[in-house]
Amino acid sequence: KRNFNIVVLPGDGVGPEVTKAAQRVLTCLGDIYGHTFSFTEHLIGGAAIDATGTPLPKETEAACVAADAVLLGAVGDPKYDGKPVRPEQGLLTIRKSMGLFANLRPLQVSPALSHRSPLKREIVEGTDLLVFRELTGGVYFGERTRTDTSASDLCTYTVEEIERVTRAAFKAAEQRRGKVTSVDKANVMETSRLWRETVTRIHAEEFPNVTLEHALVDSAAMHLILRPRDYDVILTENMFGDILSDEISVLGGSIGLLPSASLGSDGPGLFEPIHGSAPDIAGQDKANPIGTILSAAMMLRHSFQLEDEADSIEAAVAAVQASNQVTRDLGGELGTEAATRAIIDAIRAIHWAAARHVP
Amino acid sequence: KRNFNIVVLPGDGVGPEVTKAAQRVLTCLGDIYGHTFSFTEHLIGGAAIDATGTPLPKETEAACVAADAVLLGAVGDPKYDGKPVRPEQGLLTIRKSMGLFANLRPLQVSPALSHRSPLKREIVEGTDLLVFRELTGGVYFGERTRTDTSASDLCTYTVEEIERVTRAAFKAAEQRRGKVTSVDKANVMETSRLWRETVTRIHAEEFPNVTLEHALVDSAAMHLILRPRDYDVILTENMFGDILSDEISVLGGSIGLLPSASLGSDGPGLFEPIHGSAPDIAGQDKANPIGTILSAAMMLRHSFQLEDEADSIEAAVAAVQASNQVTRDLGGELGTEAATRAIIDAIRAIHWAAARHVP
Ligand SMILES: CC(C)[C@H](C(=O)O)[C@@H](O)C(=O)O
Ligand SMILES: CC(C)[C@H](C(=O)O)[C@@H](O)C(=O)O
Repeated sequence: KRNFNIVVLPGDGVGPEVTKAAQRVLTCLGDIYGHTFSFTEHLIGGAAIDATGTPLPKETEAACVAADAVLLGAVGDPKYDGKPVRPEQGLLTIRKSMGLFANLRPLQVSPALSHRSPLKREIVEGTDLLVFRELTGGVYFGERTRTDTSASDLCTYTVEEIERVTRAAFKAAEQRRGKVTSVDKANVMETSRLWRETVTRIHAEEFPNVTLEHALVDSAAMHLILRPRDYDVILTENMFGDILSDEISVLGGSIGLLPSASLGSDGPGLFEPIHGSAPDIAGQDKANPIGTILSAAMMLRHSFQLEDEADSIEAAVAAVQASNQVTRDLGGELGTEAATRAIIDAIRAIHWAAARHVP
Repeated sequence: KRNFNIVVLPGDGVGPEVTKAAQRVLTCLGDIYGHTFSFTEHLIGGAAIDATGTPLPKETEAACVAADAVLLGAVGDPKYDGKPVRPEQGLLTIRKSMGLFANLRPLQVSPALSHRSPLKREIVEGTDLLVFRELTGGVYFGERTRTDTSASDLCTYTVEEIERVTRAAFKAAEQRRGKVTSVDKANVMETSRLWRETVTRIHAEEFPNVTLEHALVDSAAMHLILRPRDYDVILTENMFGDILSDEISVLGGSIGLLPSASLGSDGPGLFEPIHGSAPDIAGQDKANPIGTILSAAMMLRHSFQLEDEADSIEAAVAAVQASNQVTRDLGGELGTEAATRAIIDAIRAIHWAAARHVP
């Protein structure tokens, strides 16, 4: 297959700028490798509320489900704080209706940028981990109640929900360093005890060659900054995954660098940077496009099985960083556009050099 | 009042060693200042399960409620993992039955130890914050269900539960740098939206002179390691407080240094180090006693209004650290006993010097 239909959801804040950057990179790769990437934009989040009154219009939902893959910018705007309809609901609903139960958040700390980490270089350098966050269960989707004097949120998990993300995490670990750290709060929560039992059973029955360890979420939050290199695959439920992946998002120097992939059992995946909508710098050519560009690389790899193309994006990003061409969040001076241009130039240069070496 | 009845709950692992250390320090202060601290030991946790079959015997509960204050070591032992009766239930039950809704976890990063932090010195040095964790509500005490194929935990908060810990946090901020950061997940959880509204209202009605900011828990987990000095008082619900306070517990060089106080509206408080039972080093004279000794200082201050006595413990701990007499967790060679002895000597020395200066 050479034609890929990508739905783009620019969303709010810096979302339009960073999705635009990733589209340019994909188009460049299409030229080089002979693929056609077609982009169709749809509304989500605050932008969708402003235009239609709802954070996820039906057309957006239908387009996403029918796409080959979805590229998302960011959603969220403080102007909706305290309002009954909020941008985030669009994101939560699309995750659920596309069945995206596994959210992959890789973190590699590059030698070129480890000096920008809040952690000491000798602790953080060489970190290479992958968070598997369960994305369609837990307290995010449980029943809520509200009265004048109280509120409640229900956290639920079924065995099946735990099993499918667990299998995905173990499979990924088999392709990496063969270790899974499952994070829960089994000394307090019933869902965590079910989580721990289920992960333990799937491990014993299906992945005995992978090393499994269990950690409590409080202790993991601590050890992740003491010994980030100890982790390979981290497997956890929705809320803990949200907190822990944001905590470690800055270890590589900037949250602006980090991509994510949200995948279901089949059907299209959704790819988005970890960072938020950053309304304070929106429209000013200041956002770091790399998180979204690397999300596009994850799309190529996970949704389209285009390994070489994904590799070439990652190589180009590494090359540009090594030459210290970075955006403001990393202490540099490049704008969003210039950073994107540098990556495109590097892709072309690397491809040209590689082509000359073919016998 | 000069006689104080302190119930000691040594608990599991290193608990007996560290509570013993704190008792020696309190006894020394009693000698100097003319107070009598009487200690009565009771069972909790795994030690209580082994002896009585339950993690919180009725006598322990009754003794705690009747005490002037409670000093706790640690509870927990991996040998109970997966068992129906677990040590932690003792801790959760005593918190609830003593009505300890506010858990105070101060963190100061001393210049003497900032080189031991995983964070870069220029980021972490000078950090001085105080976490107010709600301790008797939320998912810790909600209804749980379990079937063969699923599990659930209910997170609930009432306005009253939020109000009382909020007032405590604002009062503390008034005595400090006048800033409260309230942490929630209001873009997802209904309890968080109630939390945010309630904190906002109490602020406007009762503490308009304190600066209030709201943060999402994922973003706070990140900013705490990027800019720990920006925080003064952090106010949050039970589970978020558990995770965030453990995350930052290592910023000062070792979790072994950190104390906590759990307080109710009246009645005795409970004082315990942040660290766990550390069964791997139990009984080997390796544990850092400072977390428990500083918890005893918090007891003197918060339960007995003995400010000078509390100050002298804190001064002695600072002096000992400055002279680099530290335990293994901080790269030193002192055992638990020797570290305790050093602090007691410093208390006596400081007191002697101060006494000579009285005109
Ligand atoms: C915007 C918000 C609802 C979302 C979440 O909590 O899942 C975000 O923080 C994320 O991690 O993608
Ligand atoms: C032992 C455990 C139940 C407890 C908690 O989660 O509250 C501990 O982690 C703490 O922070 O005191």
